[in-house]
Amino acid sequence: MIKYEKLYSETANSVKASAIRELLKIIAQPDIISLAGGLPDPNLFPAEEVAHMLHDCVIAHPNETLQYGTTEGQKCLKEALVGWMKESEDIDATPDQLLIVSASQQALDMCARIFLNRGDAIITASPTYLGALQAFEAAGADVYGAESDDFGVTVEGIENRLKELKAAGKSCKFIYLVPEFANPTGTTIPQERREAILKLAEKYNTFIVEDSPYRQVRFEGKAPDTFYKIDQGRGNVITLFTFSKIFVPGFRLGYIVGPAHVIRKFVILKQAMDLCTSPVLQVATAAYIKSGRLMPHIVEEVKSYGKKRDFMLQMLEKYMPKGVKWTRPEGGLFLWVTVPEYIDTQKMLHEAVKNKVAYVAGFDFYPPRYAKHNDLRLNFSYSSFEQLEEGVKRLAATIKSCMK
Amino acid sequence: MIKYEKLYSETANSVKASAIRELLKIIAQPDIISLAGGLPDPNLFPAEEVAHMLHDCVIAHPNETLQYGTTEGQKCLKEALVGWMKESEDIDATPDQLLIVSASQQALDMCARIFLNRGDAIITASPTYLGALQAFEAAGADVYGAESDDFGVTVEGIENRLKELKAAGKSCKFIYLVPEFANPTGTTIPQERREAILKLAEKYNTFIVEDSPYRQVRFEGKAPDTFYKIDQGRGNVITLFTFSKIFVPGFRLGYIVGPAHVIRKFVILKQAMDLCTSPVLQVATAAYIKSGRLMPHIVEEVKSYGKKRDFMLQMLEKYMPKGVKWTRPEGGLFLWVTVPEYIDTQKMLHEAVKNKVAYVAGFDFYPPRYAKHNDLRLNFSYSSFEQLEEGVKRLAATIKSCMK
Repeated sequence: MIKYEKLYSETANSVKASAIRELLKIIAQPDIISLAGGLPDPNLFPAEEVAHMLHDCVIAHPNETLQYGTTEGQKCLKEALVGWMKESEDIDATPDQLLIVSASQQALDMCARIFLNRGDAIITASPTYLGALQAFEAAGADVYGAESDDFGVTVEGIENRLKELKAAGKSCKFIYLVPEFANPTGTTIPQERREAILKLAEKYNTFIVEDSPYRQVRFEGKAPDTFYKIDQGRGNVITLFTFSKIFVPGFRLGYIVGPAHVIRKFVILKQAMDLCTSPVLQVATAAYIKSGRLMPHIVEEVKSYGKKRDFMLQMLEKYMPKGVKWTRPEGGLFLWVTVPEYIDTQKMLHEAVKNKVAYVAGFDFYPPRYAKHNDLRLNFSYSSFEQLEEGVKRLAATIKSCMK
Repeated sequence: MIKYEKLYSETANSVKASAIRELLKIIAQPDIISLAGGLPDPNLFPAEEVAHMLHDCVIAHPNETLQYGTTEGQKCLKEALVGWMKESEDIDATPDQLLIVSASQQALDMCARIFLNRGDAIITASPTYLGALQAFEAAGADVYGAESDDFGVTVEGIENRLKELKAAGKSCKFIYLVPEFANPTGTTIPQERREAILKLAEKYNTFIVEDSPYRQVRFEGKAPDTFYKIDQGRGNVITLFTFSKIFVPGFRLGYIVGPAHVIRKFVILKQAMDLCTSPVLQVATAAYIKSGRLMPHIVEEVKSYGKKRDFMLQMLEKYMPKGVKWTRPEGGLFLWVTVPEYIDTQKMLHEAVKNKVAYVAGFDFYPPRYAKHNDLRLNFSYSSFEQLEEGVKRLAATIKSCMK
């Protein structure tokens, strides 16, 4: 056999296996309680409605659903989304400012490929979504991590990195943020911070990639405006939305909103990447939105996940030893646990798995130069109440056994 | 607004809009007969069966179909494909030698990203599939075109390029081929040539990317073995299959077969690209294969396209002026027309569109340094018999009007 090792590209050599995707395979044993994944609760999937919608769309529009689609996305879905964005986010966008993609991960990969040459600098929160880091690192990004507190990334944190880059003669290609119920920390960036960060971006001739998968999963409090809305059409924000967390992940559907001339660049790259996202799933999703069922479905989900968050917070309160802290997210799927500094949560994971509970170690969410070792991410959307209690109990016991 | 032009990557600046995808938008007027696209005949789509299959799969497996899937692909589809490859191609492959992708274009993009650094050399037939060129050029490939005749790429053509590269101190990362009913020429590489090309690849420490979307759409004659089969598991071939031409393109489903350790590299990149291909479409496709309906569907399609090919050949015979030549494909969706050298088919396209007929100019299928201007691609799968006759008639009139 020829030596493939000599043939691999820099991309192939720099992309790292996702800690979560790999972990999910290891912990697939049925007796492990996994608080590790980022899975929505399958009990909430509107399976019957989806089944009928798929059936009816294919029967009614066999050619549109089963033939190749346009790269930009099916007209019916783009039209439905223009209305949906206005209704749910008060965002005015035209169809040419929209690109339908195969969910947010594809959008992240496209942002990396459209803007990054190998070695180019970007800024993210530290910690941040590991799937984004994976896509950025595949493109050879040099990731600068900005400090965060209980309200997400700080303005100072962003400004420090921008100054640091400028002093080094480098520019920041973009600032990547998950503004609400951030993966992994669960924190939300307040309105004033958003405004200040946008001004900073403009000052330094860079822009915001706003990744907003959980935004509509809010249990309490008032939502700050999206960066996209605050920008008021000045073109300094590209926002990524997905149906994975508010409808079903199995459709692999999301969309990018941005300036039309930038979206055009994305369209051309997508031609080369996969021609188009599945039209049958687009047409069915458009029908679901137009039927008015999406908002009630989200309301039901918010109610359910809100109860699970409350319950997990209670369980943490009940079982965790002193010296352990956690965030209290206003929405989303995750919270973030910090243990004493001398505990390495990557090493502790082996103990946890022995105790039949799993989480994702915080380490995996940090850009390389910024790693910390004493935190971990918990998911509360997927497990049942019984599993949440037993899982937190097992985790607390694991932490206790590692404490001095 | 910030200046995005300064922020774009080399990838964004090197990827060119697909001539076909752009053309399809221009010629969407209903009175134009398009022989340009590569669309299957929607009248053959098994729409009712697909509709029921989708419905039943979601009802029977709501969690598997609507939840996130594994990056490698759904187990049920991989198992079905192991059987299908044995049955249809006498290929023995294990599930870990398979990766489910979002159709062949994604596979092509992945091949480019896994193996190519900017400036790396590859060899393709000249002309070759323009979607492949688009993906390879996005990755900065330096494409060397090997000469072809009526039986596809020649062994000498490949060897000349390999020698040329070696003499220049460069290596060939891979050789990309569409071995049967090639897009755009319709030609098929004979068995002996395949064997010789494989030996050459091994000699020069490179491998074959075998793109096989049309292979099963054979109207006549005996199929040569796939490169994959000829290689007998030595690991010097990566083969790309898709359901777009034998089932429905709207599912965006394909698969890659190769050495397990190489497939593992593809899996890790796919994690960063889109996490997974839609599980609902995978499960439905697995059900379709397992129901035994795929082979009869292909038989029906072959019968229909075979008749259309015969008819288009008759019409070309009937209407084309002397001095025009065309290929006689044994299968697939396309044939290749060569007009006198002094006619530029790109320029002629404007005349053709005025005459309400469209094709794809040959120019778009050539790697940059190898462009010719006097050929064009015709599709015979999509149009009705009436449209095929009228389209060829209009095209013949256009060519005549350009002849000296």
